[in-house]
Amino acid sequence: MAKKNAFYAQSGGVTAVINASACGVIETARKHKDKIGKVYAGRNGIIGALTEDLIDTSKESDEAIAALRHTPSGGFGSCRFKLKSLEANKREYERLIEVFKAHDIGYFFYNGGGDSADTCFKVSQLSEAMGYPIQAIHVPKTVDNDLPITDCCPGFGSVAKYIAVSTLEASFDVRSMAKTSTKVFVLEVMGRHAGWIAAAGGLVEDQGIPVVILFPEVEFDQAKFLAKVDDNVKKHGFCTVVVSEGCHYPDGRFLAEQGTRDAFGHAQLGGAAPVVANMIKDALGHKFHWAVADYLQRAARHIASKTDVKQAYQLGKAAVDLALKGHNSVMPTVDRLSDAPYKYKIGMAPLAEVANVEKMMPKDFITKDGFGITAKCKRYLTPLIQGEDYPPYADGLPVYVTLKNVAVPKKLGEFKL
Amino acid sequence: MAKKNAFYAQSGGVTAVINASACGVIETARKHKDKIGKVYAGRNGIIGALTEDLIDTSKESDEAIAALRHTPSGGFGSCRFKLKSLEANKREYERLIEVFKAHDIGYFFYNGGGDSADTCFKVSQLSEAMGYPIQAIHVPKTVDNDLPITDCCPGFGSVAKYIAVSTLEASFDVRSMAKTSTKVFVLEVMGRHAGWIAAAGGLVEDQGIPVVILFPEVEFDQAKFLAKVDDNVKKHGFCTVVVSEGCHYPDGRFLAEQGTRDAFGHAQLGGAAPVVANMIKDALGHKFHWAVADYLQRAARHIASKTDVKQAYQLGKAAVDLALKGHNSVMPTVDRLSDAPYKYKIGMAPLAEVANVEKMMPKDFITKDGFGITAKCKRYLTPLIQGEDYPPYADGLPVYVTLKNVAVPKKLGEFKL
Repeated sequence: MAKKNAFYAQSGGVTAVINASACGVIETARKHKDKIGKVYAGRNGIIGALTEDLIDTSKESDEAIAALRHTPSGGFGSCRFKLKSLEANKREYERLIEVFKAHDIGYFFYNGGGDSADTCFKVSQLSEAMGYPIQAIHVPKTVDNDLPITDCCPGFGSVAKYIAVSTLEASFDVRSMAKTSTKVFVLEVMGRHAGWIAAAGGLVEDQGIPVVILFPEVEFDQAKFLAKVDDNVKKHGFCTVVVSEGCHYPDGRFLAEQGTRDAFGHAQLGGAAPVVANMIKDALGHKFHWAVADYLQRAARHIASKTDVKQAYQLGKAAVDLALKGHNSVMPTVDRLSDAPYKYKIGMAPLAEVANVEKMMPKDFITKDGFGITAKCKRYLTPLIQGEDYPPYADGLPVYVTLKNVAVPKKLGEFKL
Repeated sequence: MAKKNAFYAQSGGVTAVINASACGVIETARKHKDKIGKVYAGRNGIIGALTEDLIDTSKESDEAIAALRHTPSGGFGSCRFKLKSLEANKREYERLIEVFKAHDIGYFFYNGGGDSADTCFKVSQLSEAMGYPIQAIHVPKTVDNDLPITDCCPGFGSVAKYIAVSTLEASFDVRSMAKTSTKVFVLEVMGRHAGWIAAAGGLVEDQGIPVVILFPEVEFDQAKFLAKVDDNVKKHGFCTVVVSEGCHYPDGRFLAEQGTRDAFGHAQLGGAAPVVANMIKDALGHKFHWAVADYLQRAARHIASKTDVKQAYQLGKAAVDLALKGHNSVMPTVDRLSDAPYKYKIGMAPLAEVANVEKMMPKDFITKDGFGITAKCKRYLTPLIQGEDYPPYADGLPVYVTLKNVAVPKKLGEFKL
């Protein structure tokens, strides 16, 4: 096998552990210098490849690459950019081949979710479709946990841990305040189509916290929801609500898109949490507090799951191992062997079966009333939030690495996106 | 000195470390059983005293009391309830004395912020005004950091650490996404009148993060603000905004007032972040994300400042020590001796000078343009977020204690609040 350079890029929404996968890819490639030359990272994902904006990761010290393991976000920049089909935009594929050729790139590692798996899949077809030998391996990443085949996706375990911990802490808070003040706390979490993240809020129920979860998979029923909250407040004195941003009415309209107005007549500006909170106030009269975690949840490396960090690294490493074994158009996966004790092995899935497929919460993970998670769901989630993997600190703040990101000299002309 | 029982209660908004103060009070009292009998905690603050709803903390094991040190929220329940003046409501004071007498209470420890210090001050006057011998000591607590005399307030260091860490992590995230997606991230933080919490966001600037802070102390100037954000996006490609819930226009109108008021008559706020984010979108066209941390910030024991936890405990302990020395109507304080190395001693302030006084950010802590913090402010803040004090974990979640909270048998008739 002739020695070739590798291309690695990060795509879509970043996570607390996508850099741990980058660390796995680069450290493993560095151990195989006989087969893999340099690892060039795309600055801002596939855009870096199209515009020949490559980062020479060999300019980074071993220490800096190791620090990626505990640094959230995308160290090389990410992008939201989906390649069109070969038929619709041949020009982009020709450009990719031109860049790969110019920089002697034979391995393509793409680190992302469902849309990105589609991009990776298209690149993997270049060998056959356009006669350029490339091995494209997808490294799974998404806080949404909605990739098929793999048991879980790196990024999810950490956001689940963050949401479970935050739900627990805020619930203790509202429980303290409920006698004379706030009785309902509403936390809005990510998950436009799948309720995996919202489900994590249910993990605190075993500590005596009444939690009502609003999943995107369950059509919102206002009367039933209010009755459930009212029941919890009557029984426990307080109630916590975890609402997914993707929660919607039967007609598909998101809760956040209500067009409601505040006390001054101003349109309410986004956010399912304030909508739900005000709904409770209006119907039941309870004082509320609400939070929207947004980026805080997916960037929260300070409370990352040790299991998640480990898997993110392992899948980055596995991607390189698969490439060295000659694979193309595949994605390494987490294959669960048992819940308790938690055991898994690293497997492999064909990209054709991964791209553009969304894995929703199974029906038997959601309680019959639609507002909670089942024991089966808890058995699934619990191992994924296991363990703490604290970053180093200095002066009270985590020490996260910002790479030098030195550009590889360009060899080609400009390319308009 | 005759042996007397003690009353302890938590008041106002709870924090990540108010229970650490409770731990300091109870553990210290347990070491002085010759002078202090039982510690009765008020269930839900002063309401517990008025309604004779007392908790017998002697029913809790040493282990449970020790676990308070790493448990956020108010373990005995808090309240938002302010005693009126003696003239306006003598009935409540007579009732307090009746309850204190019935349960042989000679020490009154009240753990709260400015409004609560006022309640504690009023109780401390009972000795003279109504001839009942009581020693009332206030244990400072407020995430707002706005109590006078003391250099800082327990609860603040931990929320400052949470906000600094979250700002850092979310800023790394938006920096990764900025090329093709989100360019501005807006984080809303607590702080109705004082910008101490918002200031903590400025601690990440040294890591190359452009942060624009909107303080309650600085009247909001939309044009100037938008120009600042625009400048940052042009220079860095992205910008982080930390907006205090108390940020307001020159006419006093909050950026996001919901029109509702709490029990103290304060306007209940929430939702400055979406207002600011949409303002940026409309004027500059940048894609944004926004988060509202709300309770998550003050309950975040998982990322508490070690300095803060230590001081919260020390001030609880100091309150008991001061009582044993015969003091009344005082509050133990943190007196800073030096910034670096950080040194402080525990001092004492008269409650008459503490109650109802709010400490704003000094002018020389805010940069001239009104959007950042000065080097002096950083020297003040940095020691307060030093050190991590992680709680124990099991199954991926923190192990927080829920006390048994056994009621003391009532001896008196009912009291209508």
